[in-house]
Amino acid sequence: MEIISENRCFGGTQGVYSHKSEVTGCTMTFGLFLPEEAQDGPVPVLWYLSGLTCTHENAMVKAGAQSWAAEQGIALVFPDTSPRGEGVANDDAYDLGQGAGFYVDATQSPWAPHFNMWSYVADELPRLITANFPIDEDRQSITGHSMGGHGALTLAMNLPGRFKSVSAFAPICNPTAGDWGRKQLQAYLGDAPETWAKHDATLMMREKGLDIPLLIDTGSSDQFIDLLMPEALAEAVTAARVPAQLRLQKGYDHSYFFVSTFMEDHIAFHAEALYS
Amino acid sequence: MEIISENRCFGGTQGVYSHKSEVTGCTMTFGLFLPEEAQDGPVPVLWYLSGLTCTHENAMVKAGAQSWAAEQGIALVFPDTSPRGEGVANDDAYDLGQGAGFYVDATQSPWAPHFNMWSYVADELPRLITANFPIDEDRQSITGHSMGGHGALTLAMNLPGRFKSVSAFAPICNPTAGDWGRKQLQAYLGDAPETWAKHDATLMMREKGLDIPLLIDTGSSDQFIDLLMPEALAEAVTAARVPAQLRLQKGYDHSYFFVSTFMEDHIAFHAEALYS
Repeated sequence: MEIISENRCFGGTQGVYSHKSEVTGCTMTFGLFLPEEAQDGPVPVLWYLSGLTCTHENAMVKAGAQSWAAEQGIALVFPDTSPRGEGVANDDAYDLGQGAGFYVDATQSPWAPHFNMWSYVADELPRLITANFPIDEDRQSITGHSMGGHGALTLAMNLPGRFKSVSAFAPICNPTAGDWGRKQLQAYLGDAPETWAKHDATLMMREKGLDIPLLIDTGSSDQFIDLLMPEALAEAVTAARVPAQLRLQKGYDHSYFFVSTFMEDHIAFHAEALYS
Repeated sequence: MEIISENRCFGGTQGVYSHKSEVTGCTMTFGLFLPEEAQDGPVPVLWYLSGLTCTHENAMVKAGAQSWAAEQGIALVFPDTSPRGEGVANDDAYDLGQGAGFYVDATQSPWAPHFNMWSYVADELPRLITANFPIDEDRQSITGHSMGGHGALTLAMNLPGRFKSVSAFAPICNPTAGDWGRKQLQAYLGDAPETWAKHDATLMMREKGLDIPLLIDTGSSDQFIDLLMPEALAEAVTAARVPAQLRLQKGYDHSYFFVSTFMEDHIAFHAEALYS
């Protein structure tokens, strides 16, 4: 593992690190904020999964999360959104290939050898950070924005017991039914819809429900709201009688100005679960 | 004036606007955050001047300032750091020309026709925003980072009565004596040092002092601290018996991770002056 940078930030350290990833077969970069309390022993951690076109950096510099994480004594992990580099397949579209891993393990060419973001975020990166940093593996929560909200929800629903709480900002809620999802699931996983189901939060909610606290914020003026389909997940959550806070925030759009506005709420929400 | 974007943010609006500037002779872009209270009437305003290589955008997305400004009901203005565009002179160096206006009115070729950032920030932009937005021109304060900290300090010292308070993050403190300053003052203003003096916070402090509250934060691990020369200004402030908070923050560097960490303090400091 290589240190790209370490900056003092809100009494703790905002680091950026790279490492050779086995599951993606390329060098991966991630951001990790450690609060001051990490000097004294393992701290709980909140995963933040980013959206289309993002790297490890966007949320790390724009979401304003470190302020609230420092206040709560929580670490933050900012993984990249796909494998990258020469030899890694790509596509001209912003929503397929590099920057658009969709948090799945691809089975189809040309994506299969590298695009294993599910295993990277679910297995390899957790092992790496708990082995190398004072992170308490028994106290993890997860959140994300847009495609990353989709990732957070589907990871939480597929890995019961892993996370203490899950939240999302403007998540893609029903990708098997929409244009942010069908194209990518088909490209990465092929034509058999049964392989898609575990990557659709609405389908997972209908089938399995969820037994950890859930918070979702979406802007009522989100320019992509028809692609996100929050109504599908709202219906599924409510029908499954899953306790949740589903909020439509008046006038907010899809940008990081929206994400940063509600970051304090989300980190306080996770802190309650992580420290209970 | 043209609206580039408007995003809902912390209950208010983060806008980006452009306009034909008379004093710089080109199209200028700026960011303006208006808190929710601006719907009911004029609000106080905090100017944020950015550093070398920045545009109107860096602080607007990375400093985390809107959260605290919203809490205090204060507007934020984020001007650009230089004129830009075809026909505007430039230099290959990152610290001269576009992105490096140094908040002076240039008198020397090739900079003279466009590089009038002093007049732009001191005169034209204040008139524009108070005419077009609910901004209370009698309640203004100013801050900035690095080159922008230099701008904030020198504007505040040269325009007595204009600002209620002034602060700076890692400001260039004594530009006539250092490599971040001499080169630019000579290029923009020529060889006569008497034209430089009003653009040097340490010289101004020695000559005129300051009669508004002053707060300066600099990181003890700032990689540019030898260019900033905080010790020169600290000596001048103290010798002039000017009430001030001069803080060296242990372990912090020159980045926005440093700026964002202390933004809450700075906005609370200005709020106290703006609402007293």
